[in-house]
Amino acid sequence: MKKYDVIIIGGGPSGIVTGVTAKKKHPEKSFLMIKKEEKGLVPCGIPYIFHDLESIDQNQMSPKPFVDAGGEVLVDTVVKVSSEDKFLVTESGKELAYEKLVFATGSSPLVPKFIEGYDLDGVEYIKKSYNYINALKAKADKAKNIVVIGAGFIGVELSEQLAKYPDKNVSLIEAEPHCLYRAFSVDFAEKADEIVKDAGVHLYTGQKAEKIIGENGKVKGVLLSNDMTIEADLVICSIGYVPNCNLAKEAGIELDDRGTIRVDNYLRTSVKDVYAVGDCSQTIGFITGRTDNIMLASTATAEARVLGNNLFCIKLLRHFAGTLSVFSTEINSTVFASAGAIEQTALDANVQFVIGKAQDVDRHPGKLPGASKLIVKLIVSPENGEIIGGEILGGKSVGEMINTVSLAIQKAVTVYELISFQVGTHPLLTTAPTKYLLIKAAENAIENIKNNKENC
Amino acid sequence: MKKYDVIIIGGGPSGIVTGVTAKKKHPEKSFLMIKKEEKGLVPCGIPYIFHDLESIDQNQMSPKPFVDAGGEVLVDTVVKVSSEDKFLVTESGKELAYEKLVFATGSSPLVPKFIEGYDLDGVEYIKKSYNYINALKAKADKAKNIVVIGAGFIGVELSEQLAKYPDKNVSLIEAEPHCLYRAFSVDFAEKADEIVKDAGVHLYTGQKAEKIIGENGKVKGVLLSNDMTIEADLVICSIGYVPNCNLAKEAGIELDDRGTIRVDNYLRTSVKDVYAVGDCSQTIGFITGRTDNIMLASTATAEARVLGNNLFCIKLLRHFAGTLSVFSTEINSTVFASAGAIEQTALDANVQFVIGKAQDVDRHPGKLPGASKLIVKLIVSPENGEIIGGEILGGKSVGEMINTVSLAIQKAVTVYELISFQVGTHPLLTTAPTKYLLIKAAENAIENIKNNKENC
Repeated sequence: MKKYDVIIIGGGPSGIVTGVTAKKKHPEKSFLMIKKEEKGLVPCGIPYIFHDLESIDQNQMSPKPFVDAGGEVLVDTVVKVSSEDKFLVTESGKELAYEKLVFATGSSPLVPKFIEGYDLDGVEYIKKSYNYINALKAKADKAKNIVVIGAGFIGVELSEQLAKYPDKNVSLIEAEPHCLYRAFSVDFAEKADEIVKDAGVHLYTGQKAEKIIGENGKVKGVLLSNDMTIEADLVICSIGYVPNCNLAKEAGIELDDRGTIRVDNYLRTSVKDVYAVGDCSQTIGFITGRTDNIMLASTATAEARVLGNNLFCIKLLRHFAGTLSVFSTEINSTVFASAGAIEQTALDANVQFVIGKAQDVDRHPGKLPGASKLIVKLIVSPENGEIIGGEILGGKSVGEMINTVSLAIQKAVTVYELISFQVGTHPLLTTAPTKYLLIKAAENAIENIKNNKENC
Repeated sequence: MKKYDVIIIGGGPSGIVTGVTAKKKHPEKSFLMIKKEEKGLVPCGIPYIFHDLESIDQNQMSPKPFVDAGGEVLVDTVVKVSSEDKFLVTESGKELAYEKLVFATGSSPLVPKFIEGYDLDGVEYIKKSYNYINALKAKADKAKNIVVIGAGFIGVELSEQLAKYPDKNVSLIEAEPHCLYRAFSVDFAEKADEIVKDAGVHLYTGQKAEKIIGENGKVKGVLLSNDMTIEADLVICSIGYVPNCNLAKEAGIELDDRGTIRVDNYLRTSVKDVYAVGDCSQTIGFITGRTDNIMLASTATAEARVLGNNLFCIKLLRHFAGTLSVFSTEINSTVFASAGAIEQTALDANVQFVIGKAQDVDRHPGKLPGASKLIVKLIVSPENGEIIGGEILGGKSVGEMINTVSLAIQKAVTVYELISFQVGTHPLLTTAPTKYLLIKAAENAIENIKNNKENC
């Protein structure tokens, strides 16, 4: 039986980054990556295949950096892992032994079996599969009335892209009161609703898809909880993802209460020499220390770097143990981003907080071309001023500005420190130095801390 | 004699921010700001008056937030301060007493008296004065051949703006080997040279202006150190600024070795109840702890927030004692930014360092519209991996990305920590999560630390 020092199951972002990082550190070891399809996709780029990108091939993600570093790739599907005897079996019948095994098996779209009609022809998903998405793009090109169920990031981005075609009628259904409700507080989420509507999407929030209606086995419409029916020749469900953990479970590897593979800070599972990384592995919330279900490529690759560096022994301590959700998206030219706690999640977890808020434009003077309105909100512990979350809305610069907030949270920076934080500003790039918004929001939080009455 | 609790001399960014911050904290105290001209300008916006802005009035900066908070403003010039008897005298003859006095007197362009012809008609400067710049704009509008002396930020930005007029011939002279040589290492500065040239500016680096040639008292050209003569009907000198400290010096307030007003961490001068903030006050280098001569509105306002919060007693400790230079600019659609040490300044100060570098595009996939090439360089201590500087080149997002680097330096983040730094990424906004460049540059620095031979 052929044996590799390391076998990685999965060719997504966490598989690739684990492979590249570890192989570069250990060029003498043999590495194999087993992936299901020849071609891979940039996961977060998938919505843009539907309009902004010229073709699906512009959104390919390949394990080339891993191969360049000397790793081997096998296109096949692993059907069984024997974690006791340290080998695996593939669909094509190959048996391969390993010294170390990495599950980077990712996640799959949640299929809403609780909605009648979910299995009709014309009900589709955003699967992270080149072949599947290629086929779905062809279906979407032909469809006139498209209903997207679920207004999280993927649902919102997909709807916005599809609504750019003047001949398509795009509806978006969300059971929560607003779009992007998991990532933004109500004031920001309300703005997201407006912008989604401005983009030409018919938005139905606070509405469940009660039933998917069909005729001759083919989808015809969606019935909402308010009894309204929306006509549809294509329904795309984007109501979340479930981790791909069956293979690991069958191999006797322990899962956690959320059904993801239990791991320690160094991505080590309950079985020696078996690791799990990315969507299929356990996530611990940054603030609460409880299990969480954040599935982001950015988070996955952060874990993958930790794993890649520490696969054979712990060399680089993991400095940020919990997973901080850092989200960003652009809808119809407005960027929304958040990091860490938002008001809802802070309330849910019984975390005391005050808000600091500031707004302005992202140029100075504001009359310079390309200026966008910018709003910054910080979620702050009133006890010591520590920043535990942030939300930003504005132009393109928000995509990187949120990473300053993210670093501030990860380094336990307080609003009192931010007062003397030295930033770079420029007329064409940022708000004026006199009112740089992270600092103004910190000042506002300090005022609010003073006026805050203890609530727990 | 009328008495104020606080008098601020100067209406620039540091004067305004000191005033607003302190007045909001102490609404019961009386505040007066004395400024020389009715109308003020956003200092770093001045180059854009020459092209991108429709009029100078779009670049106004007013003390309105200070007035809204209850502060008074007097347009006048202070001619004498009696720091013993705590009063001052203005040009118009007013005598005003104070409890606390703040010098926010700023800086003025360096006049190159060492260049023959510096006093010819047609030799101008970038003074932070509405009336002066308004007149200069009219002169620039008429000029055909313009020579800018000094390729620091102001010189480069001004030249780029003027070169947007097809009928103007714009030359830029710099004695150092490259543009922006104080803020960027050679590899970045070389790129700035290219981009300045691409913008249509005739660039002469490594050349001194030996003499400004005149005829009948009017400027006619500039003689370079290589004996070449450049024709000119307008010469604009941008070779640096000198702090406005005469008034303070005459009042017996101590200056430092660089001629700026000596202050402690809370902007207190050698005389009780007298403060100095912004360009006129002493700057201490973040890494060296030596006096430095950084003059930036962003730095000035950071100091002003420290002062405004602590004017009557120290309430908020200053967390970052030294001044970190954080620069950014955009030249012909390419953004350059740096924070902290660069290679030249690290060498000059005998600081041991290694470089970590990475490049990619700022979208993922890179085929998405609006993608720009992005280059990140980190300057890192090989002893413990602490980040001491960074330089970034790319699209608009660089303006905020440098602030993540700035925070990392200010919080002593190491490249080992950055490996597990959790960032937000998005196809339309950032590099891919698999290769987020601050992290890739950190990885590269770690490799280079391993290969580094001790050099001191």
